Amino acid sequence: MKVLGVIVEYNPLHRGHVYHLNSSMKLVTPDFIVAVMSGNFVQRGEPAIVDKFARTEMALKAGIDVVIELPTVYAIQDANGFATGAIKTLEATNVVTDIVFGSESDDIKTLERLASIIVEESKEYRTSLKKYLKKGLSFPNARRYAISEQVLKEGIDVEQIKFSNNILGVEYLAALKRTRSQMRAHIIKRIGSSYNDEQISTIPSATAIRKSIKSGKKTSGIPQFTHHILEREFSCGRGPVFSEDLFAFTRLKVIMLGREGLEQLYGFNEGIAKRMIKAVKDSHDMKSFLLKIKTKRFTFTRIKRRVLYALFDLEREFVKESNEFGPQYLRILGFTQRGRKLLRMISDYASKPIVSNVSNFNKALEKRNVNVSLARQQLMLDIKSTDFHTLLFKNENEREIHRDFCKPLEIK
Amino acid sequence: MKVLGVIVEYNPLHRGHVYHLNSSMKLVTPDFIVAVMSGNFVQRGEPAIVDKFARTEMALKAGIDVVIELPTVYAIQDANGFATGAIKTLEATNVVTDIVFGSESDDIKTLERLASIIVEESKEYRTSLKKYLKKGLSFPNARRYAISEQVLKEGIDVEQIKFSNNILGVEYLAALKRTRSQMRAHIIKRIGSSYNDEQISTIPSATAIRKSIKSGKKTSGIPQFTHHILEREFSCGRGPVFSEDLFAFTRLKVIMLGREGLEQLYGFNEGIAKRMIKAVKDSHDMKSFLLKIKTKRFTFTRIKRRVLYALFDLEREFVKESNEFGPQYLRILGFTQRGRKLLRMISDYASKPIVSNVSNFNKALEKRNVNVSLARQQLMLDIKSTDFHTLLFKNENEREIHRDFCKPLEIK
Repeated sequence: MKVLGVIVEYNPLHRGHVYHLNSSMKLVTPDFIVAVMSGNFVQRGEPAIVDKFARTEMALKAGIDVVIELPTVYAIQDANGFATGAIKTLEATNVVTDIVFGSESDDIKTLERLASIIVEESKEYRTSLKKYLKKGLSFPNARRYAISEQVLKEGIDVEQIKFSNNILGVEYLAALKRTRSQMRAHIIKRIGSSYNDEQISTIPSATAIRKSIKSGKKTSGIPQFTHHILEREFSCGRGPVFSEDLFAFTRLKVIMLGREGLEQLYGFNEGIAKRMIKAVKDSHDMKSFLLKIKTKRFTFTRIKRRVLYALFDLEREFVKESNEFGPQYLRILGFTQRGRKLLRMISDYASKPIVSNVSNFNKALEKRNVNVSLARQQLMLDIKSTDFHTLLFKNENEREIHRDFCKPLEIK
Repeated sequence: MKVLGVIVEYNPLHRGHVYHLNSSMKLVTPDFIVAVMSGNFVQRGEPAIVDKFARTEMALKAGIDVVIELPTVYAIQDANGFATGAIKTLEATNVVTDIVFGSESDDIKTLERLASIIVEESKEYRTSLKKYLKKGLSFPNARRYAISEQVLKEGIDVEQIKFSNNILGVEYLAALKRTRSQMRAHIIKRIGSSYNDEQISTIPSATAIRKSIKSGKKTSGIPQFTHHILEREFSCGRGPVFSEDLFAFTRLKVIMLGREGLEQLYGFNEGIAKRMIKAVKDSHDMKSFLLKIKTKRFTFTRIKRRVLYALFDLEREFVKESNEFGPQYLRILGFTQRGRKLLRMISDYASKPIVSNVSNFNKALEKRNVNVSLARQQLMLDIKSTDFHTLLFKNENEREIHRDFCKPLEIK
């Protein structure tokens, strides 16, 4: 029996995702597919364009059998935290045999080597890393240089394999090593890279699709079912939700926390709190606010994630514990009729409790060996992030709180 | 030399206030008048309709010589905290000789007697208070009954002197006693009570005036200068600001804090957190939100104040310390040319540092005996409340942060 695990955001699901899914199935020929998917906030530090319930529907229509939510505390972290949460979620099901991820490179051997260096943390590597950090580089960049130094002797040129684009892939592999996972990793070269130029030009990226939705243009490159789901959501006023919609709340939150308050939170090192406080004083929209904070070290994505850390009062200790102990539950967002069987298997084998209905959460926690306080914190954040996302809907009447207290979506 | 102190909100300043000011001057014949005025949030638990800078201008035009800000931590408390802060502010100037306040009753002897009971806290009174609290009454109501029991023997009927309307007056008198103040208290019977019916009908209350502004009607009952100032502020989009404008922020804040978070804060006892969490789930405006929380015990005003406590993350310890130690600075909002002389006297005699320019705050703290950490907390809250109020302006371009970093208003 083979169960394929994939890590997705589907913001929104487009033809590139369908291509990836079909290629993965050809490669692995699985009996079932389970996806771990970001909830209402995604790794770019943005609210998802439509909520996790609508995106779950897209995933199921595309052929995923069971969709599990990646808890928010992981979904909004950098590549390392995101990968840690995603891999630990798939691992916790205890049924996934293979995972496939997209990559700019199809050289899994090299990616594995880079992942080893991160995981092993040799003395030589650590010395090199310290050197670059002392030079004032950000951690991701310092690490990239330190890794380069290690592998150049082996004839691997990190630049050539586009390390920065493959960072997630390397992190997935590193997380697999750290958890001593038995899941087999496979790579599929992403469309958008060189060998498949014809196809690329007809498949816009998720970014391009969100852009065309924002400007009200006709959206191409998405399957018919994505189109229908988006249309339905938008016509009800449940989106589209954009980063811009966070601005009024962000401004107030930054003012209320102040520099001291920000610096108590996760991720506010290297002077970003000071820059944020300064920028908020005369910014009148998200774009100008972010632009005022941006430096070489603080990319837009890093800043936007930190905006979310502020909005969610994300505490350092909570993030640290979450990364160490992994997700404390498997929140089922949806499944197909076929997926029902897989779900039963997961229920039987998973190392963490299944949460199908948030109302029964307390009961779920009794069942298995979980860190109850951490589980509560993780689920609380998921519920709050759904509530927050809901408040960003265009239609006031759709802004109903606690939409998380519902059954998983089931489709035929 | 006589210096008259008055405690005001001027939200906005109307003809009733002018009447009160003129009557006070006739009564006391002071050389100068100093007002302690609520900043951008007022005791009703609402944002002021226009900001403290515009309202300072009204006060100066009406004949006040110096306007001092009542720190936010007092301005948004119940009658007891409000009175404590206001009296301690006037006391700290060390120049105020007389204070006058409006009252429904002109029987200062009886009000003094009621104040004594509160201050003295006899064993009998405390037993009686406990009895009513045990019956489930709110503190203000339990206290009212306990006081009634004490004074009935003396032939004073608390109901008859409209105790509930005179609560602020009694609190002022109690605060004067507690601080062993040498300031002489005087009462002026408020218009709106029985003896002056003709005049009343032509002077609407501040509530009625705000209502007519909200509905866009022509506003009567305000002096020409108030009218001009309001017109100017509104035409620039700096208001009018209403409680309703807080709703989107309140909803998010309540969701993010959750019941546990709310219950950590000042004022969230007696189950109000639970009611608030429940009410927020399907409320789509401030009015319906408040209506869902309201009970006999929780009046609208008490709830609205608690909404502000949530928005400002008001901590119990901070409020307790503020009430115990009083305001740690005298923030000068404005003065007239005449008031310059009074300001110099205050500078010379005050027991707390004068803050004319917030930028020089740290320097001001060095000068006198202050609780520096408390001073910082108090001023921080004042700055944040101005910033918050500014974000509620209609005109995005007027939403400039840190408007507090300006000199006091000076008019001829």
